[in-house]
Amino acid sequence: MLKLKTKGILIVISSPSGAGKTTITKHLVNKIPNVKLSVSLTTRKPRSGEVNGIDYKFVSLKDFKEKVKKKLFLEHAKVFDNYYGTLKSQIIIDLKKGKNILFDIDWQGARQIKKKFTKDLISIFILPPSLKELKRRLSKREKSKAFVNKRMSKAKREIMHWSEYDYAVVNDNLKNCLSKIQNIISNHVLKPHMQTISKY
Amino acid sequence: MLKLKTKGILIVISSPSGAGKTTITKHLVNKIPNVKLSVSLTTRKPRSGEVNGIDYKFVSLKDFKEKVKKKLFLEHAKVFDNYYGTLKSQIIIDLKKGKNILFDIDWQGARQIKKKFTKDLISIFILPPSLKELKRRLSKREKSKAFVNKRMSKAKREIMHWSEYDYAVVNDNLKNCLSKIQNIISNHVLKPHMQTISKY
Repeated sequence: MLKLKTKGILIVISSPSGAGKTTITKHLVNKIPNVKLSVSLTTRKPRSGEVNGIDYKFVSLKDFKEKVKKKLFLEHAKVFDNYYGTLKSQIIIDLKKGKNILFDIDWQGARQIKKKFTKDLISIFILPPSLKELKRRLSKREKSKAFVNKRMSKAKREIMHWSEYDYAVVNDNLKNCLSKIQNIISNHVLKPHMQTISKY
Repeated sequence: MLKLKTKGILIVISSPSGAGKTTITKHLVNKIPNVKLSVSLTTRKPRSGEVNGIDYKFVSLKDFKEKVKKKLFLEHAKVFDNYYGTLKSQIIIDLKKGKNILFDIDWQGARQIKKKFTKDLISIFILPPSLKELKRRLSKREKSKAFVNKRMSKAKREIMHWSEYDYAVVNDNLKNCLSKIQNIISNHVLKPHMQTISKY
């Protein structure tokens, strides 16, 4: 009696670094049907192992600023000393095709996207189990204390925005956290605006 | 890092009769934690097997109309030739205690409750797989063709309101339908207004 409409949704995931967002988005790309990870443009230098066009599209500051001027971005933000942004063009094409698009962005980007899309967007904030645990995870990756402290204060500022999201999920256990996110996404298609009623 | 608040929610389930709502609510009462089924007042006569105070609180038309005048109802509606309604008093006490309250009501009642509660309410519409299947189910219970036809036209009018709900679920298979509803409810507690962040 009900039929799913062919339309994609935007899935926005934010969290402080160290809360497991990268691992989570990697898993979600394999688990959510018809999903595509949005690739941001950034002015920061590639880290070792990062591939242009897959992890980010690496662009010059001049190029980035030109695109801002031309209003080509759906959202863009400055994080630490670097710029990050998502181009409008591809997103619109993908949504029309019925693709679900996964965004791994910070609260500033999330806020901008949420202004432009309302019903067809789910925003999820991932929290670490505690700040102590977050510090432990960050220290494991990075030896420089100053760097860890910088990340921690950035994390605290990011966490302040947790309640602006549709859902907040604690990543205390990767499996549980993933299954909660998958449930959130599969529930979304049960909303009436995602379905049509056939003639009866 | 996040803690659930002690507060109950309202879970409103509507559907045309024959879509399996009674079976579904009976199962949900056993599966949703801390849940209570709201018992409506009605002016209709008890059917065989119905128990006063459990299935409904059976009251006289005079008594019902007095309560309407005194504004004691959270919602009330006339369905066929009978009145149905939910009293405010108990609901408010139960919500404060953190109880989740399940409502098995029609679209008229749902609309009234939704006006009074917004964030703390989930509304779900249950649809039959098809009208043909609905007719088959109704004819099984009831031999009178006239009665079945009356129910069918009532069902069509009820179904017209499916898109006013937060979620619409087809009951093609009881197990799947129940698990979808349980997911919807367990997701709700992941919304930020249901949680508080502990000091960090």
